[in-house]
Amino acid sequence: MTASPPVAAPAPPITLLTDFGSTDFFVGAMKGVILSIHPGAQLVDLTHEIAPQDVQAGAFTLLSAYDVFPAGSVHVAVIDPGVGSARRPIVVAAGGYRFVGPDNGLFSYVLDREVDTRVFHLTEQQFFRPVVSSTFHGRDIFAPVAAALSLGVAPEAMGVEIHDPVRFDPFRARRLGSGAVEGAVLHVDRFGNCITSLTRADLPLDSAEGDLRLEAGSRIIPTLRRFFADGEDGQPFAIWGSAGFLEIAVRCGSAADDLGLRRGDRIRLTL
Amino acid sequence: MTASPPVAAPAPPITLLTDFGSTDFFVGAMKGVILSIHPGAQLVDLTHEIAPQDVQAGAFTLLSAYDVFPAGSVHVAVIDPGVGSARRPIVVAAGGYRFVGPDNGLFSYVLDREVDTRVFHLTEQQFFRPVVSSTFHGRDIFAPVAAALSLGVAPEAMGVEIHDPVRFDPFRARRLGSGAVEGAVLHVDRFGNCITSLTRADLPLDSAEGDLRLEAGSRIIPTLRRFFADGEDGQPFAIWGSAGFLEIAVRCGSAADDLGLRRGDRIRLTL
Amino acid sequence: MTASPPVAAPAPPITLLTDFGSTDFFVGAMKGVILSIHPGAQLVDLTHEIAPQDVQAGAFTLLSAYDVFPAGSVHVAVIDPGVGSARRPIVVAAGGYRFVGPDNGLFSYVLDREVDTRVFHLTEQQFFRPVVSSTFHGRDIFAPVAAALSLGVAPEAMGVEIHDPVRFDPFRARRLGSGAVEGAVLHVDRFGNCITSLTRADLPLDSAEGDLRLEAGSRIIPTLRRFFADGEDGQPFAIWGSAGFLEIAVRCGSAADDLGLRRGDRIRLTL
Repeated sequence: MTASPPVAAPAPPITLLTDFGSTDFFVGAMKGVILSIHPGAQLVDLTHEIAPQDVQAGAFTLLSAYDVFPAGSVHVAVIDPGVGSARRPIVVAAGGYRFVGPDNGLFSYVLDREVDTRVFHLTEQQFFRPVVSSTFHGRDIFAPVAAALSLGVAPEAMGVEIHDPVRFDPFRARRLGSGAVEGAVLHVDRFGNCITSLTRADLPLDSAEGDLRLEAGSRIIPTLRRFFADGEDGQPFAIWGSAGFLEIAVRCGSAADDLGLRRGDRIRLTL
Repeated sequence: MTASPPVAAPAPPITLLTDFGSTDFFVGAMKGVILSIHPGAQLVDLTHEIAPQDVQAGAFTLLSAYDVFPAGSVHVAVIDPGVGSARRPIVVAAGGYRFVGPDNGLFSYVLDREVDTRVFHLTEQQFFRPVVSSTFHGRDIFAPVAAALSLGVAPEAMGVEIHDPVRFDPFRARRLGSGAVEGAVLHVDRFGNCITSLTRADLPLDSAEGDLRLEAGSRIIPTLRRFFADGEDGQPFAIWGSAGFLEIAVRCGSAADDLGLRRGDRIRLTL
Repeated sequence: MTASPPVAAPAPPITLLTDFGSTDFFVGAMKGVILSIHPGAQLVDLTHEIAPQDVQAGAFTLLSAYDVFPAGSVHVAVIDPGVGSARRPIVVAAGGYRFVGPDNGLFSYVLDREVDTRVFHLTEQQFFRPVVSSTFHGRDIFAPVAAALSLGVAPEAMGVEIHDPVRFDPFRARRLGSGAVEGAVLHVDRFGNCITSLTRADLPLDSAEGDLRLEAGSRIIPTLRRFFADGEDGQPFAIWGSAGFLEIAVRCGSAADDLGLRRGDRIRLTL
């Protein structure tokens, strides 16, 4: 009897997140470079429709999706207003994943959430394309590095560890003396829903619906709902969103517009 | 001499059809969940640009493309205005394919076309994600179920058979006493072309072009053309569309606007 | 000791470039057809957002990305205003790649750049779908032919060689008596950047930045910059773009609008 030959498990996927849009050749070129180095690599688009140069929106979108992918996945993120300047290209190892992109805060929220993170400045040019343009590091640096990572090259072999990556202000909830908890608006989605920084870990909130007192903008929101379909038209309410954060929504309306909320605004919750 | 080891055929693809758009993390999260359960699964986007909550448009788009995929393909469709409510999650087995999504009519046209169809209410929660949100069943129920199906789990193991799935009115052609055939506008595409419910099986129409008399809206259309490029600008004509239905088109114009046609409107053909 | 069985290298990818947009079933149907013939084929979208029927824009986008893909890749391009008419379906073998699509100039720039190119008129209908519609050759001819090519069928087996494919005027730089070089605007991207036909091979231009004299529209552009971020707002400058061509850009503005430039306009460079 002969044992079956071992079947190699497929390599974990490489995901791509950019602000390149979908009309130009940019995303296709990144994929071509990856497949030239790692034939058969599995490529998954997270989105290419991040608003141009909106690093924080990219950071939030990455935070919302990175951890449902299989361990070992490589997440490439290119929102890169500083391309060609002195900003560092980096690899982040965190949570069993590798992240590749510019050092401008894109991986900030992942670094906040994960423990045992390591960050490497990409200095080993043998992992880049032979000629690196000054305008398209997505194709010339980040794509080939992602391909090498997905083939098993260790981040340690690609550069030097650094301890000062660019970080946004962390969005830790702040417990106030009064028993209230303070957070901030982390993201406004295209429907005007305001995703706050508050998670279930921040709140002694057992139920998925009921009364609360959430101060946001000039308004006080009194209700936590379970479904979007539940709210009355025009009335703001709170809801646990699918990314794990408390969201402020208005049924058939824009919470951001109605409450005058923008990214970074403080919100305060009393139970 | 040693025989080559058997090479496993690739598993059939999993297609995704949603109204999620492409700017958010939603589609990416569904794919991450699928790949975590079925590493290496082949994923194909049908479209994510169905108008929000337009179940009928989703049903038509699915009908137009499902049967060119290999037998065994799993088609996931999530246009789900009732997410979190009592509407049932289902699997449909039809035509050698499996379909996964909410029970709201999305699979209605497939059920009309195929014979020997079976529908199962998804009740076996071991095939769901451990925590199911109330707002994102695409990620928490339909994606993991699709992954399990693509790995070979039988629909029968996932729930109980039902016989009352939500169905739209079937769009069977109706033969009128006069020898005319009555149908309806099934879909208006983004160019304003009106796809009718009439197929070649409904009509004793041999040729691909010639004279006919098609009453639609307030107009009578006298010509069947073979190519879009054939028509005169501004004149409506009929044409066999690529989805297999008789379409009403206006060269360089919108048939829907010009003839005042909307989905559901009756049309009548005399040969 | 037993040697490991040979592991088959993955087949090279099939890329898709169309003007079909992403809301309809068209792209999905092409992929379904390909996967029915070549299970497990690797599919990569270049873009589906070429402006409707803009063959030249498609030709430019293809030129910008085709050669970063692995040797053997199959590039399918369908911008096909003449679908159903007498225009020929073709396969181009060039640069180690195969290109499939209508004979309307789409592969013109690739034919200009590569040597040892061959072009075949697709006449062997056994490689098409059994029924070929008059409106959707992407699904019925080009997709199945691409699948066959990716499985190893030779272009020679698919049709007859031709020597008169449709070609756009080649965009060779023209050296003028004065020492100047004349080129043309090859493409205007969605930011209004004007990609010219001049490449590094055309110019005795060593450095990536410095002074030059570029006559374009009614203006004289005096500077070659290295990064987009370098320019002063509102001032046009030249830059080596990531597709390998000299581009005319305006920081935070549209070079096409500001200089009144359109595709095909002549530009003249003096060093």
